[in-house]
Amino acid sequence: MKLAVLGVGLIGGSIGLAAREQLDAVTVTGFGRSPARLEKARGLGAIDSVASSLEEALEGADACFCCAPVGELPAQVAAALVAAPKDCVVTDVGSVKERLVAAVEDERFVGGHPIAGAETAGVEHARADLFQGAVWYLTPTSTSSGLLYERLHRLIVGLGAGPVAIEAAAHDRLLAGVSHLPHVLANVLVAQVAAEADPPRIGPSFRDATRVAGANSSVWTDIYMANRLAIADEIDSTVHLLQAVAEDLRAGDEEALAAWQDAAGADRNRLLAAESRAGRVHELRLTVPNRPGIVAEVALELGKAGVNIVDLALAPAPDMRSGAITLWIAGDEEAERARGLITGLGFAVGKP
Amino acid sequence: MKLAVLGVGLIGGSIGLAAREQLDAVTVTGFGRSPARLEKARGLGAIDSVASSLEEALEGADACFCCAPVGELPAQVAAALVAAPKDCVVTDVGSVKERLVAAVEDERFVGGHPIAGAETAGVEHARADLFQGAVWYLTPTSTSSGLLYERLHRLIVGLGAGPVAIEAAAHDRLLAGVSHLPHVLANVLVAQVAAEADPPRIGPSFRDATRVAGANSSVWTDIYMANRLAIADEIDSTVHLLQAVAEDLRAGDEEALAAWQDAAGADRNRLLAAESRAGRVHELRLTVPNRPGIVAEVALELGKAGVNIVDLALAPAPDMRSGAITLWIAGDEEAERARGLITGLGFAVGKP
Repeated sequence: MKLAVLGVGLIGGSIGLAAREQLDAVTVTGFGRSPARLEKARGLGAIDSVASSLEEALEGADACFCCAPVGELPAQVAAALVAAPKDCVVTDVGSVKERLVAAVEDERFVGGHPIAGAETAGVEHARADLFQGAVWYLTPTSTSSGLLYERLHRLIVGLGAGPVAIEAAAHDRLLAGVSHLPHVLANVLVAQVAAEADPPRIGPSFRDATRVAGANSSVWTDIYMANRLAIADEIDSTVHLLQAVAEDLRAGDEEALAAWQDAAGADRNRLLAAESRAGRVHELRLTVPNRPGIVAEVALELGKAGVNIVDLALAPAPDMRSGAITLWIAGDEEAERARGLITGLGFAVGKP
Repeated sequence: MKLAVLGVGLIGGSIGLAAREQLDAVTVTGFGRSPARLEKARGLGAIDSVASSLEEALEGADACFCCAPVGELPAQVAAALVAAPKDCVVTDVGSVKERLVAAVEDERFVGGHPIAGAETAGVEHARADLFQGAVWYLTPTSTSSGLLYERLHRLIVGLGAGPVAIEAAAHDRLLAGVSHLPHVLANVLVAQVAAEADPPRIGPSFRDATRVAGANSSVWTDIYMANRLAIADEIDSTVHLLQAVAEDLRAGDEEALAAWQDAAGADRNRLLAAESRAGRVHELRLTVPNRPGIVAEVALELGKAGVNIVDLALAPAPDMRSGAITLWIAGDEEAERARGLITGLGFAVGKP
């Protein structure tokens, strides 16, 4: 299998390292703007060879990872799709998805976003285990090829991550709350404390709360711009919650404050527990009509319900009019839920 | 030297452990509501003996640490001052100071607040090194005895911490921003994300940003209540900053967002650098009138300017009408600044 990695920074370099270490019979070709960085990536073992053009990088490629900064992704993905073979899956690693995904209608494209490594940049920080156990969002659409989606899903499992299908707009709203808003709050907290006349000594809780403050400005300005309305909406919600707390404080409503503190503890435990759930892996086999978008439909339905697909495999029937999808789901309760959701979509779930 | 520790939880227990390990010729007597907890503290080596009454705990004590929860401190400090010998320094470890300090006019009392160990409670988590390198705020007033302040300062240095003098009201405003506000923001962030219909997978930046969410509710409700107006003011400031960011996002003002992101990075570096400053220790000797409040005045002036007093010593002149204070200050620039500030107060600074 031949992989093309466009842009060999932290993420692109780690994809190359992980693929070369963990996948069988794979070669990785790198391409990017900086010859020096590409040579560095080759020296570090992140790529097998440096391509001298985009076309050369994509010649005979089975999969292409677009790893440019968020602001440059639309152009990079479009160029990759022009140069890529017709059975090559093209994906990206940008942390905002809706605008990019809406602009592409090519069946070979599936948007992606690994949740890993936001703090250090550069191929010198790349690691083969960067994606180990990480969520890797995929945003297939009704135009995405099922076979190419399957290939990408397996590649990502091979890199050590857990693919989770999600609609692009839902992804952006989700990330606005879980990732972009924490960055906004960290910045605001730092600005507020730094504005004090006597810059105070800061403690461990402040250090933790502001660890991501002022992260790489060119990366983050792109992200803010690409997801600006969803982030602004999240900020509005935060402002309302904060105003309610300030009201309770001014009123001296001890009971309300205690209940609010307790609820935060319970909510956090619930979120952390959801994070670490796992269990026995179940195999589900579905028979589905063999048409574009069917894999995306199933993957998105389960992703939306928080059910992780550990692995999936496609097998078209001999008449090519129907096909079988085999899904592996971790956890007894999750597998049961998956069965119900798939039945709800109108597909039969058989015994393996 | 005999120390009394009232309330042997995480902080009281750690004071006992640190004192018994790191100070010479010290005995620690513990007192509290729960005989079982006191026995446990003795078993862990945090105290030498268990007193059967407050009076017994304070008999012959040189220093008393009041370690009750914030809401119970006013009563505990008042009772300790009734029972304490006339040359015993009484302090507390509460994280909110103004109301408590304003209620006490006894020259033996100096409010205190070590910045350490908010996450785990209970004497079983007590450690001799809990205060190593930590800031320990002290809130002397014009009624505080200089000699007793000196004794407390040295004790705290002996426990491994760095005492920093600050006025009680300024302390509370400071902590509202540096500590209480991060707790409020962590709670709000958790509540907001947990309210999503599909509870999302959370990433490392979210975990860090919400590490303190829902911390021990009885402790934190007390803190919120005791410092409620200052926290509400901090929340108002946060709301204004957030609204400005939301405006920039909605306007798509890329330049403003980039500048804001850069400023947050620079501010955070500045706060962290201030945190770790140190250097050669200088000795400054002052001659001052021998009257109450003089040590507090000097300590507060330097604390306000961010100058750390590594150690201090008092020596009254034979006529008892004037005295010498020797200060040890870390850092060339800080020592020079200290010299200027003390001269500004009208006191002579001589060569050691």
